[in-house]
Amino acid sequence: MPVPYNQDVRFARGSPFMLRVGYPSAISAELLRDFPRQVELVSIVDGLDGEIEIEVWIPDPFPTRAMRVWPHLRGVRLVLSLLAGTEWIPAVVGPHVTICNAHGAHNGSTAEWTVAAIFAMLKYFPLYLDIQRAGIWKRRFEAPAHYAAVTGDQHPHYPPVMLEELAGKTVLLVGYGAIGQEIERMLEPFRVQILRVARAARVQPTVYSVTELHALLPRAEIVILILPSTEETRGLIDRAQLALLPQGALLVNAARGPVVNTDALVEALRAGRIRAALDVTDPEPLPEGHPLWSCPNLLLTPHIGASSPQFAPNALRTAAGELRRYLAGEPLRNVVQAAV
Amino acid sequence: MPVPYNQDVRFARGSPFMLRVGYPSAISAELLRDFPRQVELVSIVDGLDGEIEIEVWIPDPFPTRAMRVWPHLRGVRLVLSLLAGTEWIPAVVGPHVTICNAHGAHNGSTAEWTVAAIFAMLKYFPLYLDIQRAGIWKRRFEAPAHYAAVTGDQHPHYPPVMLEELAGKTVLLVGYGAIGQEIERMLEPFRVQILRVARAARVQPTVYSVTELHALLPRAEIVILILPSTEETRGLIDRAQLALLPQGALLVNAARGPVVNTDALVEALRAGRIRAALDVTDPEPLPEGHPLWSCPNLLLTPHIGASSPQFAPNALRTAAGELRRYLAGEPLRNVVQAAV
Repeated sequence: MPVPYNQDVRFARGSPFMLRVGYPSAISAELLRDFPRQVELVSIVDGLDGEIEIEVWIPDPFPTRAMRVWPHLRGVRLVLSLLAGTEWIPAVVGPHVTICNAHGAHNGSTAEWTVAAIFAMLKYFPLYLDIQRAGIWKRRFEAPAHYAAVTGDQHPHYPPVMLEELAGKTVLLVGYGAIGQEIERMLEPFRVQILRVARAARVQPTVYSVTELHALLPRAEIVILILPSTEETRGLIDRAQLALLPQGALLVNAARGPVVNTDALVEALRAGRIRAALDVTDPEPLPEGHPLWSCPNLLLTPHIGASSPQFAPNALRTAAGELRRYLAGEPLRNVVQAAV
Repeated sequence: MPVPYNQDVRFARGSPFMLRVGYPSAISAELLRDFPRQVELVSIVDGLDGEIEIEVWIPDPFPTRAMRVWPHLRGVRLVLSLLAGTEWIPAVVGPHVTICNAHGAHNGSTAEWTVAAIFAMLKYFPLYLDIQRAGIWKRRFEAPAHYAAVTGDQHPHYPPVMLEELAGKTVLLVGYGAIGQEIERMLEPFRVQILRVARAARVQPTVYSVTELHALLPRAEIVILILPSTEETRGLIDRAQLALLPQGALLVNAARGPVVNTDALVEALRAGRIRAALDVTDPEPLPEGHPLWSCPNLLLTPHIGASSPQFAPNALRTAAGELRRYLAGEPLRNVVQAAV
């Protein structure tokens, strides 16, 4: 027997309800104005007790909260995730539920994080922020040796090199979906050479097959990982792949942590072989005392790449589109698991 | 009577010498290969004793070193600076010497620093680097209050906002010379609205006169300063101008320190009114204990925006062009002071 739930009656609008959609109560009701009129919106509070009967579930973007809610839900046939990555959902909801992601909603913010992370590393901002925190006007050539060593300046420059330019660099883009293409668009003014890799080779533009990755890594001054986390891509970047990178190469992970072997990455960073910028880690969250925290030449952000003010509006607009199609009996656009 | 100097005979090449050009010995001779054959290259060591007779002087890019050398030079008629900013030179060499800057050589690197600094601040990288250094997986909403407070989120978001997007922001570009235009080119993919300001108003594209600055500041979410340091521009951004900026606006100084009133900036930062990213300060270098070091919501780099591996090659290519024109009796291109 369903217990009372926190239903927002402002959304009734006098239409006959056809579809009950549960959403996290923390999301502002303002953002749900684009939802179809036939939808009955069911606000789900964190720490929910009892049971709720809904056909469509919009889970909280924080998986731990969403997982607390799931055991209280009944009748869910469709999950509309607000995120691009949905890897925790199938194991929780099982195979009899259709799962859609928020394809496209976070392309811009994730691509911007990637460009920002590349620039922060090429301009040595972690070094300069450490210097700023110490409050002493110093430059790179006066800084701890590991900063200068990793890029392996072959010819000592005068004046000393205190940052790098993106212009002219060779960028290996591993993953050429919508976000990968958005990153390429954003890199356009910076005159980089882009090498593209995806599961299957393509032409116009040239996209290499991931089976050719080993041949491309030695040319990559910057490697951007922006591919889905699947069983196939788990550990794609391991010891052997890192060893193929040129000295001082920058590895940027804007995808998911398990795409990179963390132990191998820690070794390569500690050895001063490469640099890295990560928005995702494996494990995640990264526990206190994990060796990654103290690796040199690393920028680590706590999986925040898409979390801009545009996050919720964009993702809910995408969800509204799926709801309209669902009500009309049309095929859904962003299905990542079809119910069996 | 000139004393012996450290002359690099590899550059004699059998041509009759017509022009003696002094350059800092620390610059690799490789980089001088494009210089005209009629030039006699005179390598000037740091800590030089005695006198050197040269007609053209390429000063060390570090002003303190260059100023140590000047009293030992005789016969200088032309100074070719490797930098865009030459503000220390006229007072040192006097009015009877022509001074050229390295116009254009550092446009790309300076513009890149500007884009990098904007992104670092919008993505809250200083906050996330502090979190990384502490080694505890936290996000913005769990961070010290001054990080969250400055941007003044009017409507609390869910999920919490952990970075901002550049897309859609209004950018006020103060200075629309070659570097300003390069910055605009680099911002093109990010869908910002650009308001341009220069000394004189222009059309196509619309450039406002600096006299209209007060009317534009209230619209500026990001202000980029990239204008020359002159008596006219000293203190251009003072208390009154900072007070016109919207809450949480980002001030980026890629020009010269004195363009901003430092005391007013410190006040605005401490009050949580605005954010800033500075590659230049006033005074410079910033002394230990200066209040700017500990201001919140600030990224401060020690005047390194142009110091990339391309710095010396680009600047010396520009100098080589001026030398060719000087030898041919043609007008010089980048004169910032004509000899009287």
